[in-house]
Amino acid sequence: MSHIIKAGLVGVTGYTGMELARLMTHHSSMELVRVTSRSEAGKTLAEIYPFLNRLPLGDLVITQPDPADLADECDVVFLAVPHKTAMEIGAALLAEGVKVVDLSADFRINDKATYEQWYDVEHTQEDLLKEAVYGLPELYLEQIMGARLIANPGCYPTSAILGLTPALESKLVETDNIVIDSKSGTSGAGRGKNVGTLFCEVHDSFRAYGLGTHRHTPEIEQEISKIAGKDITVSFNTHLLPIDRGILSTIYTKLATDISLEEIHDLYTDFYAEKPMVRVMPLGQLPETRFVRGTVFCDIGLVVDPRTNRLIIVSAIDNLCRGASGQALMNANLICGLDIDEGLPMAPMMP
Amino acid sequence: MSHIIKAGLVGVTGYTGMELARLMTHHSSMELVRVTSRSEAGKTLAEIYPFLNRLPLGDLVITQPDPADLADECDVVFLAVPHKTAMEIGAALLAEGVKVVDLSADFRINDKATYEQWYDVEHTQEDLLKEAVYGLPELYLEQIMGARLIANPGCYPTSAILGLTPALESKLVETDNIVIDSKSGTSGAGRGKNVGTLFCEVHDSFRAYGLGTHRHTPEIEQEISKIAGKDITVSFNTHLLPIDRGILSTIYTKLATDISLEEIHDLYTDFYAEKPMVRVMPLGQLPETRFVRGTVFCDIGLVVDPRTNRLIIVSAIDNLCRGASGQALMNANLICGLDIDEGLPMAPMMP
Amino acid sequence: MSHIIKAGLVGVTGYTGMELARLMTHHSSMELVRVTSRSEAGKTLAEIYPFLNRLPLGDLVITQPDPADLADECDVVFLAVPHKTAMEIGAALLAEGVKVVDLSADFRINDKATYEQWYDVEHTQEDLLKEAVYGLPELYLEQIMGARLIANPGCYPTSAILGLTPALESKLVETDNIVIDSKSGTSGAGRGKNVGTLFCEVHDSFRAYGLGTHRHTPEIEQEISKIAGKDITVSFNTHLLPIDRGILSTIYTKLATDISLEEIHDLYTDFYAEKPMVRVMPLGQLPETRFVRGTVFCDIGLVVDPRTNRLIIVSAIDNLCRGASGQALMNANLICGLDIDEGLPMAPMMP
Amino acid sequence: MSHIIKAGLVGVTGYTGMELARLMTHHSSMELVRVTSRSEAGKTLAEIYPFLNRLPLGDLVITQPDPADLADECDVVFLAVPHKTAMEIGAALLAEGVKVVDLSADFRINDKATYEQWYDVEHTQEDLLKEAVYGLPELYLEQIMGARLIANPGCYPTSAILGLTPALESKLVETDNIVIDSKSGTSGAGRGKNVGTLFCEVHDSFRAYGLGTHRHTPEIEQEISKIAGKDITVSFNTHLLPIDRGILSTIYTKLATDISLEEIHDLYTDFYAEKPMVRVMPLGQLPETRFVRGTVFCDIGLVVDPRTNRLIIVSAIDNLCRGASGQALMNANLICGLDIDEGLPMAPMMP
Repeated sequence: MSHIIKAGLVGVTGYTGMELARLMTHHSSMELVRVTSRSEAGKTLAEIYPFLNRLPLGDLVITQPDPADLADECDVVFLAVPHKTAMEIGAALLAEGVKVVDLSADFRINDKATYEQWYDVEHTQEDLLKEAVYGLPELYLEQIMGARLIANPGCYPTSAILGLTPALESKLVETDNIVIDSKSGTSGAGRGKNVGTLFCEVHDSFRAYGLGTHRHTPEIEQEISKIAGKDITVSFNTHLLPIDRGILSTIYTKLATDISLEEIHDLYTDFYAEKPMVRVMPLGQLPETRFVRGTVFCDIGLVVDPRTNRLIIVSAIDNLCRGASGQALMNANLICGLDIDEGLPMAPMMP
Repeated sequence: MSHIIKAGLVGVTGYTGMELARLMTHHSSMELVRVTSRSEAGKTLAEIYPFLNRLPLGDLVITQPDPADLADECDVVFLAVPHKTAMEIGAALLAEGVKVVDLSADFRINDKATYEQWYDVEHTQEDLLKEAVYGLPELYLEQIMGARLIANPGCYPTSAILGLTPALESKLVETDNIVIDSKSGTSGAGRGKNVGTLFCEVHDSFRAYGLGTHRHTPEIEQEISKIAGKDITVSFNTHLLPIDRGILSTIYTKLATDISLEEIHDLYTDFYAEKPMVRVMPLGQLPETRFVRGTVFCDIGLVVDPRTNRLIIVSAIDNLCRGASGQALMNANLICGLDIDEGLPMAPMMP
Repeated sequence: MSHIIKAGLVGVTGYTGMELARLMTHHSSMELVRVTSRSEAGKTLAEIYPFLNRLPLGDLVITQPDPADLADECDVVFLAVPHKTAMEIGAALLAEGVKVVDLSADFRINDKATYEQWYDVEHTQEDLLKEAVYGLPELYLEQIMGARLIANPGCYPTSAILGLTPALESKLVETDNIVIDSKSGTSGAGRGKNVGTLFCEVHDSFRAYGLGTHRHTPEIEQEISKIAGKDITVSFNTHLLPIDRGILSTIYTKLATDISLEEIHDLYTDFYAEKPMVRVMPLGQLPETRFVRGTVFCDIGLVVDPRTNRLIIVSAIDNLCRGASGQALMNANLICGLDIDEGLPMAPMMP
Repeated sequence: MSHIIKAGLVGVTGYTGMELARLMTHHSSMELVRVTSRSEAGKTLAEIYPFLNRLPLGDLVITQPDPADLADECDVVFLAVPHKTAMEIGAALLAEGVKVVDLSADFRINDKATYEQWYDVEHTQEDLLKEAVYGLPELYLEQIMGARLIANPGCYPTSAILGLTPALESKLVETDNIVIDSKSGTSGAGRGKNVGTLFCEVHDSFRAYGLGTHRHTPEIEQEISKIAGKDITVSFNTHLLPIDRGILSTIYTKLATDISLEEIHDLYTDFYAEKPMVRVMPLGQLPETRFVRGTVFCDIGLVVDPRTNRLIIVSAIDNLCRGASGQALMNANLICGLDIDEGLPMAPMMP
């Protein structure tokens, strides 16, 4: 390819920024030319991330975030900053003519009031809210390819929506009795200084932390309601795993129709046949977070419990890769006219 | 106390045997005088468990399991052997006049046919099945104190039943819509040689492994059906955590009555007021497996999700201590006329 | 015992404070009556440490640190605060007539100049420096029993000194060629907010962090020089383990005399025969940190490498228990006239 | 490149076989066309490794190991089988005209008697022992490129030799006082069924396991003796880390010359300037196993302790990738005329 896409990354000090730097190392058609951080500007990437020594990105000097400079240098910019901050800098970048992939929640929720209720801040960019495309390629491939602003999906929603979509689209399950029990690795809690995520507070333990109140709830409900064609309220609940990466969601549904596990499995397999980043596991196998480690795969396992007439869907992703930066790169590839999987590692790291 | 109870342990090489040896080290009214193992007979405990060096039990010589010898030397015998084996040796010991606490599943299921269906072996001791008392002290304190054969509860059932009992007894929740999503530490998988539980197959990963098919299902249903006064079928599902010890069950129910979270919390607190090994957490706090590590506590957290009208109960135990050997010791204390908590550590090890 | 010793704890929010609270739960002759914290005063212990719910200490209200109040209420006070702070409050408490066990480094280094060089602060209590007794009971039992100020040893020094003492006392090894390669669990890094000790920065990784520069160096050299009867300079080096608790030191020495491994083993076994908290492992066995988890044991393994004429000593302790709060409690027991092991758990938690 | 190299893998069920399958997924010039296993023949790779679902290698059918068939289909064959077995099948393959990269120890030790002494089996292929090239590209690049039989280095030796080479070549350190304290992740212990490597036996613990007796000792000594130009005996000692992947070796030496840390650092940097898979870290930084996770990098940190006149070298690799399959692929690339780094991931997975 003659033209190399130039990319910028706003916010490099968190785990999603770190992951994007990892992924961009192997991309042959897109180059990271700007990385920004208010606190680390002036250093090279390798100075803050020694794992990048002797790699091309290691010498990249971190700059202060400056929309004009980013617009001058970049075709596309990733935003890996907290919500509310993303909204403002995203608007500035779009005004300068740059494409934007926002990893925060700021453009995910279509309804301004719903966003403001769950995130407790004012949304100042309502027009962009309408324009943004929800960056889940299995659902919105065409729209993503034509977009200039991508709302990159949340980690939990990615696992939940991909797990539920075929069942809801085919009206296999009751829509008023869905329980999503999700467990996430600790990188999902971010890289901020925090006693609660110290090694000794997480290691060799397990806890629930968000029961019925997690901010990813409206995002899940928005998307699955569209698929089902009616409003769905889910019980969405989260737990903290003593692992670095990985989300596994166990999704409990009630079957609404008379269908065998084999038929459901066929239906899922067909639905994802042309969508190679989702792997419906053979019957009898269940996902494990390590099977998707470091990749954009979403693995789905299916079980029917005839005693309770439930379809149980198990869905696993890597929260940092498919749940954040890897999916962001899929979206950036698409809006820049590249193949969806360019630069993405496909083989999970085992063990 | 002038009289020291003499105890035996059949099967010392697994994690429950190991845990019982740990607990007995600090017991001042009961002494472990016999430990048996077919493969390790002739060695001292310290030879197979170096952590017992310079402790009184370290010098205890492991013997071959021999009911007559155990009966001669012991007042009470713990069985930490696989199901089916336990049934036979338990019967022999009872015939010799020894009290028995069986940690296997052999005497937990009241109905012979149900046992045989789920465990796929013939039950040869139907009379003992009728006699055995289910050793959950919060439910059966009186019966345990008068028993000679205790069916020590399974680890998952202990967490599930203690979590559900107050809600079911007070008819707070619908009985046909209960989902139990349980996660267990790896010691629950035993100490046998197995690729699936090697460090590199479990560490930094998470998986579901028993969805709708775990053998603890009928045990849970049996006990909660008694409490509710009607037959309950649950969706019980298990996952493997990369931690040594601990079970956390997230139990999803639908409220059947108009009641506030505060009222539910009061009801739980009252129910367990005289049962000090269950701790109903203050509102706003949720259990973590580390809070009960190494102890017989069961911690319960309560959440009401008004959006879905669900009561979510989170219940945490240490699967080896409360879920096996610690509870066995509580039962042994009771059937030998001691206080329930003698010899038991109460302060969890943190971190 | 009719008289209960009353104890205070200054600084309850760190891991050593947390560990002391755990240990005091089971002490029948000493009661924790005061716990202090500037940031958490007014709360109960159970409010900040839910694992203490329904335990006697859970209801203890945290107070501001006030020497006069502590002196009024306590016979002995533990200081679990940073160095420099400990020095000041320790002096105030001693002036009020209270016995003090200081877990910081402030009174460990006999020489004021050496302390100031390594810790980079002025030592304002030189008289107390002279008075303080180094609280390693295997070396200073008599002095501890008569002391009013104990300098509780550092975690690494405890493992290193106990490992080297018999060899140095018997002049088995060269004194100018000792390398101590120590590895510590992450609780040793404290409970402060710090990116470097976040779960995702420590888990599934391993690193060296203090090579030749750790502040425990002069403490080790001071004590082993006394034993050897001459000044020793050691190469002391530290690493961070992805475990909660535990230090394992691999100590490399050159044999200075013609002696067999069996003779060395006998010599070590004899040396520690009357010191039951040190366990010299049988030949062929090596320590593991889990074998001492939660206890005050120090396990020592011995290897002679005939190819290099080296004696390799492996020494393992629990850094929080033997390396801090458990040893502090041993010292408090001794200065209060109790048996050294009162209240201390002896059986490690396995697994 | 028009011609795709065809590769075979004998022994796919262990961790090194698993790792080679991962790496080959991304290789564009070499294709894995045969994988063998006596126990799993007939299944596809995805059936035993679900992480390979929907990847090209997932459909590859495992065959019985058959030298004639391998020779028919492959240009190069990797041997990931135990020592002794490798020797026999390697000879058969070479006789058929196939190039061989042997991951076992069978061709690493130049001296037949030394091999037989440490490995306790007869070496039946003495001629091949003479022919084999030790596959450490930083030392033997030219020879590797012309070889048909590569003895792929051991994991520990790779870290130790790369760490010591510049110091020994420049005669910076005494050769009779080298201590190598190595710590390895548990994948190094293999994927066999074994109580000692069960999750609950390794997790949250740390132990020494091979002090002065590890079979990698003669391999290290052979190579560093060549570099130093004289026979060296080292004290080489190993420990087991509760991590999946990674070796960190802390190497203790005595300086033999008057040289500053800065000069040593320059010397190391120059030595590895043209060898991009070794990264000499900036002064003040030390390696961490996570910085090399999943890659063939070897990271080296340097410290001079002026108090003891020691140069301490810290060397970190990924034991499965650089220490086994990644290095094997580097060697296969070289003997097949490809660039050394084709198909190899360069960016470590963080966290």
